[in-house]
Amino acid sequence: MEYNVIKDAKNILNNSSYVVKNPQSNKNRWMQAFGNKNPIHLELGMGRGEFIIEMAKKYPKINFIGLELNESQTATAVQKLVSKNIPNLKLICGNASDIATMFGKEIDTIYLTFSEPWPKPIDEKKRFTHESYLKLYDRVFKKNKHIILKTDNKGLFQYSLETLSQYWYTFKRVSLDLYNDENPISNLPTDWEIKCVKDGKPIYYLDARFDE
Amino acid sequence: MEYNVIKDAKNILNNSSYVVKNPQSNKNRWMQAFGNKNPIHLELGMGRGEFIIEMAKKYPKINFIGLELNESQTATAVQKLVSKNIPNLKLICGNASDIATMFGKEIDTIYLTFSEPWPKPIDEKKRFTHESYLKLYDRVFKKNKHIILKTDNKGLFQYSLETLSQYWYTFKRVSLDLYNDENPISNLPTDWEIKCVKDGKPIYYLDARFDE
Repeated sequence: MEYNVIKDAKNILNNSSYVVKNPQSNKNRWMQAFGNKNPIHLELGMGRGEFIIEMAKKYPKINFIGLELNESQTATAVQKLVSKNIPNLKLICGNASDIATMFGKEIDTIYLTFSEPWPKPIDEKKRFTHESYLKLYDRVFKKNKHIILKTDNKGLFQYSLETLSQYWYTFKRVSLDLYNDENPISNLPTDWEIKCVKDGKPIYYLDARFDE
Repeated sequence: MEYNVIKDAKNILNNSSYVVKNPQSNKNRWMQAFGNKNPIHLELGMGRGEFIIEMAKKYPKINFIGLELNESQTATAVQKLVSKNIPNLKLICGNASDIATMFGKEIDTIYLTFSEPWPKPIDEKKRFTHESYLKLYDRVFKKNKHIILKTDNKGLFQYSLETLSQYWYTFKRVSLDLYNDENPISNLPTDWEIKCVKDGKPIYYLDARFDE
């Protein structure tokens, strides 16, 4: 999806109390950072944050962290939060491949919403459901593993069904058309998701778990 | 799919050397029945047999057994075999829920091709990927388990991804559109499948395994 480049993105990030500037210093103490023992859910690649912000508003008893590599997109998320008070939400502008430096075994759920599909075989390792990422997630999941994945990309979805099952995740719920499923699934859409639905494209949904 | 009712189906079955009249007597001795030690692949609900017949012709080093409950459909399969000599093919007119009376741990692969989707929740137990069936298959798989599933029914496919993963199968290959997949999958179509493809409907494909 296109997004605006924000020239003073760095400033916006620096001046926002939602943005954790040095997430490494919170490793193994995110509970203290949030000031409670509620579960912590992490979104990798939050884009402009519409999903994680709405989730945080809807579920105040869960702590949400949105991570995004792109500064402009993270700044756009911050701009949506001006004059809003959402104590159970924090944002990080950083690289998903660095999460083991930011988190100990503290995460309950990881959201992968409309991740880059990286369709070329040469880019397979960049997909957020490549085995190397699944191994990385093992280092930050508290005990049981729980991934919620949404995408409009058929190839990424097929790939993720394969890699997650081969990594012994089990699928509590699969939908090949989230918006026309006979058994409705509670869901908050991203802007991109809304556009896909308007264009008549199916949204693929997966709730994958590995319980110790 | 509609099919013709064949009035003398019973006679046709009785007079065909392809049809195993008392499959229970072959339990634990299918190797002898085929006269070789080749792998044995079983299709549950073969319908009019077009898939299993073509598979048997294509792969002479594999023994194929097609099982179908409906006498008329089984007789239609038999009629296709008149004056054909396919020594690695046998047919059974019988109930899939009885396979543990017909087979010991002798089966290498089970095909579930365009099985009845049984979409109503009350009929869930009749789906060939319901847990009770998966347990039944455990009793006839040789050692490693291997299921190939094809369907045009989205609901059955979603359901099967869930039940098979929860039963610890891993997915070697998933396709949400077999005929337009970027990585082609070797495949022989059924008549119903050809009709679906002509109508522009996607075919869902799953290669699920559990290796000891």
